[in-house]
Amino acid sequence: MSHSDTPSDWLVSLRRDLHRHPEPAWREFYTTSRIVDELETIGVDELLVGSEFIDPGTRIGVPEQAEIDRWDETARHAGAREDVLDRTADGVTGVLAVVRAGDGPTIGLRVDIDGLPRSESESDDHVPTAEGFRSETDAMHACGHDAHATVGVGVIESIVNESAFEGTLKVVFQPAEEVIGGGKAVAESGQLDDCDHLLATHVGLDHPTGEVVAGIDGFLAVHHFAATFTGESAHAGSHPNEGANAVQAVAAAVENLYAIPRHEDGATRVNAGVIEGGSAPNIIPETARFEGEVRGETTELKEYMREHATRVVKNAAAMHGCEVDIDAVGDAPSARSDDAIVDIVEDVARESDGVETVLRRDDLGGSEDATYLMQRVQDNGGTAAYVGIGTDHPGGHHTATFDVDEASVGIGVDVLTESIRRLAVGSNAER
Amino acid sequence: MSHSDTPSDWLVSLRRDLHRHPEPAWREFYTTSRIVDELETIGVDELLVGSEFIDPGTRIGVPEQAEIDRWDETARHAGAREDVLDRTADGVTGVLAVVRAGDGPTIGLRVDIDGLPRSESESDDHVPTAEGFRSETDAMHACGHDAHATVGVGVIESIVNESAFEGTLKVVFQPAEEVIGGGKAVAESGQLDDCDHLLATHVGLDHPTGEVVAGIDGFLAVHHFAATFTGESAHAGSHPNEGANAVQAVAAAVENLYAIPRHEDGATRVNAGVIEGGSAPNIIPETARFEGEVRGETTELKEYMREHATRVVKNAAAMHGCEVDIDAVGDAPSARSDDAIVDIVEDVARESDGVETVLRRDDLGGSEDATYLMQRVQDNGGTAAYVGIGTDHPGGHHTATFDVDEASVGIGVDVLTESIRRLAVGSNAER
Amino acid sequence: MSHSDTPSDWLVSLRRDLHRHPEPAWREFYTTSRIVDELETIGVDELLVGSEFIDPGTRIGVPEQAEIDRWDETARHAGAREDVLDRTADGVTGVLAVVRAGDGPTIGLRVDIDGLPRSESESDDHVPTAEGFRSETDAMHACGHDAHATVGVGVIESIVNESAFEGTLKVVFQPAEEVIGGGKAVAESGQLDDCDHLLATHVGLDHPTGEVVAGIDGFLAVHHFAATFTGESAHAGSHPNEGANAVQAVAAAVENLYAIPRHEDGATRVNAGVIEGGSAPNIIPETARFEGEVRGETTELKEYMREHATRVVKNAAAMHGCEVDIDAVGDAPSARSDDAIVDIVEDVARESDGVETVLRRDDLGGSEDATYLMQRVQDNGGTAAYVGIGTDHPGGHHTATFDVDEASVGIGVDVLTESIRRLAVGSNAER
Amino acid sequence: MSHSDTPSDWLVSLRRDLHRHPEPAWREFYTTSRIVDELETIGVDELLVGSEFIDPGTRIGVPEQAEIDRWDETARHAGAREDVLDRTADGVTGVLAVVRAGDGPTIGLRVDIDGLPRSESESDDHVPTAEGFRSETDAMHACGHDAHATVGVGVIESIVNESAFEGTLKVVFQPAEEVIGGGKAVAESGQLDDCDHLLATHVGLDHPTGEVVAGIDGFLAVHHFAATFTGESAHAGSHPNEGANAVQAVAAAVENLYAIPRHEDGATRVNAGVIEGGSAPNIIPETARFEGEVRGETTELKEYMREHATRVVKNAAAMHGCEVDIDAVGDAPSARSDDAIVDIVEDVARESDGVETVLRRDDLGGSEDATYLMQRVQDNGGTAAYVGIGTDHPGGHHTATFDVDEASVGIGVDVLTESIRRLAVGSNAER
Repeated sequence: MSHSDTPSDWLVSLRRDLHRHPEPAWREFYTTSRIVDELETIGVDELLVGSEFIDPGTRIGVPEQAEIDRWDETARHAGAREDVLDRTADGVTGVLAVVRAGDGPTIGLRVDIDGLPRSESESDDHVPTAEGFRSETDAMHACGHDAHATVGVGVIESIVNESAFEGTLKVVFQPAEEVIGGGKAVAESGQLDDCDHLLATHVGLDHPTGEVVAGIDGFLAVHHFAATFTGESAHAGSHPNEGANAVQAVAAAVENLYAIPRHEDGATRVNAGVIEGGSAPNIIPETARFEGEVRGETTELKEYMREHATRVVKNAAAMHGCEVDIDAVGDAPSARSDDAIVDIVEDVARESDGVETVLRRDDLGGSEDATYLMQRVQDNGGTAAYVGIGTDHPGGHHTATFDVDEASVGIGVDVLTESIRRLAVGSNAER
Repeated sequence: MSHSDTPSDWLVSLRRDLHRHPEPAWREFYTTSRIVDELETIGVDELLVGSEFIDPGTRIGVPEQAEIDRWDETARHAGAREDVLDRTADGVTGVLAVVRAGDGPTIGLRVDIDGLPRSESESDDHVPTAEGFRSETDAMHACGHDAHATVGVGVIESIVNESAFEGTLKVVFQPAEEVIGGGKAVAESGQLDDCDHLLATHVGLDHPTGEVVAGIDGFLAVHHFAATFTGESAHAGSHPNEGANAVQAVAAAVENLYAIPRHEDGATRVNAGVIEGGSAPNIIPETARFEGEVRGETTELKEYMREHATRVVKNAAAMHGCEVDIDAVGDAPSARSDDAIVDIVEDVARESDGVETVLRRDDLGGSEDATYLMQRVQDNGGTAAYVGIGTDHPGGHHTATFDVDEASVGIGVDVLTESIRRLAVGSNAER
Repeated sequence: MSHSDTPSDWLVSLRRDLHRHPEPAWREFYTTSRIVDELETIGVDELLVGSEFIDPGTRIGVPEQAEIDRWDETARHAGAREDVLDRTADGVTGVLAVVRAGDGPTIGLRVDIDGLPRSESESDDHVPTAEGFRSETDAMHACGHDAHATVGVGVIESIVNESAFEGTLKVVFQPAEEVIGGGKAVAESGQLDDCDHLLATHVGLDHPTGEVVAGIDGFLAVHHFAATFTGESAHAGSHPNEGANAVQAVAAAVENLYAIPRHEDGATRVNAGVIEGGSAPNIIPETARFEGEVRGETTELKEYMREHATRVVKNAAAMHGCEVDIDAVGDAPSARSDDAIVDIVEDVARESDGVETVLRRDDLGGSEDATYLMQRVQDNGGTAAYVGIGTDHPGGHHTATFDVDEASVGIGVDVLTESIRRLAVGSNAER
Repeated sequence: MSHSDTPSDWLVSLRRDLHRHPEPAWREFYTTSRIVDELETIGVDELLVGSEFIDPGTRIGVPEQAEIDRWDETARHAGAREDVLDRTADGVTGVLAVVRAGDGPTIGLRVDIDGLPRSESESDDHVPTAEGFRSETDAMHACGHDAHATVGVGVIESIVNESAFEGTLKVVFQPAEEVIGGGKAVAESGQLDDCDHLLATHVGLDHPTGEVVAGIDGFLAVHHFAATFTGESAHAGSHPNEGANAVQAVAAAVENLYAIPRHEDGATRVNAGVIEGGSAPNIIPETARFEGEVRGETTELKEYMREHATRVVKNAAAMHGCEVDIDAVGDAPSARSDDAIVDIVEDVARESDGVETVLRRDDLGGSEDATYLMQRVQDNGGTAAYVGIGTDHPGGHHTATFDVDEASVGIGVDVLTESIRRLAVGSNAER
């Protein structure tokens, strides 16, 4: 195993290709195809795509069919393999790869693969723009999932070709993390139920290249929802009294959503993230909607926020004579990394090339649906940890100038591969 | 002149064709083509299209170029004449037709031609659906402008072929009334400055078929605006304090917009009609916008509302750490029909076939940018009136089930043609 | 009958004494005593005080007992007669005086007598301050009811001593007009049910001295209400989540109250006039309340506003986990002056000394619970009118610098006395 | 030293007398008198009252003079000593007692003495009501400051009479803690600048009788403010457009105050605690005000909240055409208990009768202006700690049914006296 912090040209090339073709949640057609292509080249023991391991009915945050079709077409134009597009034709994306290497424990690794629905910086200061791999779609890899997918492929390659690994490795290339819509679906697939240990990973998070966090905690439990208000349309000049203004209902809901009291038990969050509604300035809008989220330091705090948010939204609608439907569009619990894994990752990281600083634990302060998978494995008696791989990132996560230092891809592959190898040994020893 | 209330098959067919191809403001490409086609067949003395009489820089409420291009293409597919599409290629629509018939006064007639950006009812109870002329675009003639354009063509045909008219008739087929963006542009073209009299007309307005209003007043002065808020984006979970939420600013603006006090001097109106903004539930939205309108029974009351609305919007932005741009997207003054014309129209209507009730005056309670034209003619020493032609309409104006009783097209042609003829005589007599 | 526009020193002195002792609704103890005193001196045929003609249970807007007691005591200290204080000891104020003068119709005159709960200007530019009759209580005659009461006494004196009046005159000195709480109670007393005609009157209303309005219309129907919210108290620092903040509920209610749409059928009004609640900055407030009003150009429009306001208030409470009680604290319908009386008043005013301008009709644009009495008389087949007596008033009604030109008291006495005399004759003639 | 957990009858009697006469901030006239009386009986070396040690100009949250006078009078009626009332006649309350006992370090003890402006439960389940010492004023000791003052007196008595104490003891009976208005004033008096150690104490805080917290941390920094809005008064019916509604401005401010984003660095709080304004339902309110608070886990977070709150309030005023004044009415920083003292208190508590559980540290989650004193002593090189004395309290702090278990008074006296004695020894040893 080469403890180098420079990823191979092959991984850099893969990462840049994924970066050039970012695809949002449940539309990762090109990405799935590209991953399958690499894994078939490497050779794995089992390779499941989309609905071959995910029940379509368990997905959350699924877009309209027309939107799915549009991205399918875009992937085709970009050169996605027709045989893989056939396997994702029902709109379920993602890959599960299994490597079986003798009689050892089952170790899971979860990486996420989706991009964000935002445009990428066109500035020449932005490396992907300067070096020609800026997004060609109207989405952007603004959170490093291009690096995550690449790390996943790299780990498999290392385990298959280089590492003295004994056991079973299951790597999930999970779709739809950004809408916290894929974690629950993968958890419910049961594919990870036999995992003795699960690793999940993320680059950056304000940690610079050369820093590794052995166990990230402080996941905020989160709930995303969409509230759709239906009122009554009328001409705003001649019949103002005949309308029930759905935009007013949204405004009242948004204003009062922020009035949910802070909680003595810990941190909470609330955001009104998207609004849309109405048709013209002179028409009292019949429909309007907003998407928002609430979070809590614990799952209980998230539920506290969710209940209050529901109360606010319903009464805002009634106040303005509107009906409202509230739909969950994403949800994730809180979670905590287990010491048993954190110990090993910490040791491995300290010995890895390119790693200068190792933090045993740190808080995320954000949300992640890897928590569904961690919780699932922990509920089944296994252990789980979420490993942070520092990367210099010029812009913040989710902004137009986010980028990763590609050195971190090499570090990630090395730290995770070696951790997986030792976990297999450790678990064997324990048995 | 045939005082029949049944429009010719030709006019019905024209109206239904226009109904099937509704086009929103400044995108009336098919409509313009169709009108030109009819008028060339009839034969008029002068025929100006789009920027041949409208200065492009005077338009308000002009859509994005991509949107204009899309509708141009749609019109082409629907069969619009290439030579007319060439004349509207700069994105200016509408027609000015002039009929010169001897030595008499100049009479103006203004009809509007645009549709609304809304979908049409698919119910079988809806006549256009049942009889196969439902909208083929994603707009709808939900305010009867298809009938208006048809009446304009019908009046020209009558004047040219049947009526003993002496004078000059100028008929403006005005674009972009629904966004109150065309009236000002046509007024500033100066084409109506030599009009001794101006008639404008509208069908329906809750008056049934057989009812005519000789002079409509009570136009609410109106101002449409778009407020675009720019805040600061941030991850709602991990960096809530780093954002400046543009959606919150919109909510505060909308809520407080309604708090502008009623005015002792007369009726006012306010509406928040359209909202949009943000990208995802977990991102603090950097941009959001809304479109709204204010109205007043007088131009002064409209200005009172506009000033207060501006104050609310600016402080809502500042309150949430956002910047805001406020753009006017439409504006129209108030106006009043002159007795001199109302007298004649009242007499004509009482004698017309199919007319059962004649109201001398009634209040609109809405807005119209014909007021720009009326005011222009009145300022130049002429007289103006706005004539209501009743029509049974199953759904209200601007709703999905709006439709006109085609009998009203015939009534409109008759009443307006004869009124124009008598105005010419009357004016001649006065001279 | 002396048609002079200068009131006698006696009336000026009475008006100033009343001005010095303003008393708010249902606390007019000194005022009642003073009126009784004058009327006993003049000599009338019947003199009823407080609950001798008003059923206590029909009052609305009655203050707390402690507040009533405080004003009773204040009146005593100011020199109110003990025997009259005994007659108002149950907290019902006001006077009904009857003059019987032969066999003629019954004419009613209604004047109101209460002050406003606000302080009076201490500026030397303010005549009552400069001339030493500024308010000695913490209320103020800021709407001219001191002049009204004086006019009522003056009319009785004229009818008794000077006028050739044949019939029955009933003058109601009505309490609690400012809270629109006395009109309904007097109407329900039935004392005016036998009136053939009813006059009510008001000074000022932006009409200068020398101007008379024969028939005021345009009374806005009005509804006053108090909304009391009950939430849950908690320490704002240590247990923020345990509270239900009643002040937030009030804020949401007030904001959204203004969002009730304007109505196409005519003018509406809304106001949040009084707020109070909470105990300390660090306590989540358990209770809070506000008082507001809605108005409409018609009784129907007032009801439209009232229903919407109720909906807003209830949902604002529920939104914040609070309970709410909504109590009516005042109500008055709309009304219209009858031509039969307007004709006579117009004629009388044109002939009166000191009157320079007579308007036949004008709109109030405000509310008045005299409408209850007018409606009652009209429902019983009589006629009613509301007469405006212009007066120069430096400050607006209800402001700290409001004052009346005492010349208007003389004009009011003359115009009303002569109108009453002629109404008696006219009615006699009609019989 | 008697390590009994039962306070003497004398202390119970004192506590109940104080409970019966609760006085809010800067109005503790009876309380000051009562404390002086006890301390004179015990005999101390120095006894300063009110402005003898507090500069009147440094007070914050001082009430109106009329309010001060009213409580001075109430205290007089309740039996406060005239000579002490003379010493607090300038409206400065509180006591500083000094005991000098040989050549040792200076130890400070701070107890607070004010009540809350709220009424006390009248239920028979409420011990003070059942046993006849319910509040006789319209305030209430709903936070245990009656117990604190009693503990302060008890400690002095123990030190003077029983304890082998060598050093100087300074006990501050601080006024105005509830409005966080006294701590800054006492700190700036400089009287504690020579303290080597400072103890402050609080009963309850959800810790039961028998539990002691050696060092409380987690004080939320806090800022209390009052925002007074001035608009324009007008009649809501006749001149709605002439007003600028200060109540609307308050509503907009309150609604948007809660929209200040949560902060990633730690807990924040916000509350709108008190509102008042307006005069009548039909008058557009010219003035309205609210009192609120913001808090932060650190002083920086408090400042973050304060700055945003200021921005919201100013723009809410401007939005409705109002002026606004924002006044600080209370402020306190965050603070942390020093290990040096916590060690000693922890040891003492473990050995004390009646103490069953000792927590080394716990978080308050609320605010306290003892932090000003702690910070002052720490800035001068001394150490400070805040000691929690558990007490069973049926109702929560600041609620109508709050009460203390009097056993905790005995525990408090014992733990603090012995801690002070050992601190003197320890400090001596260190020197």
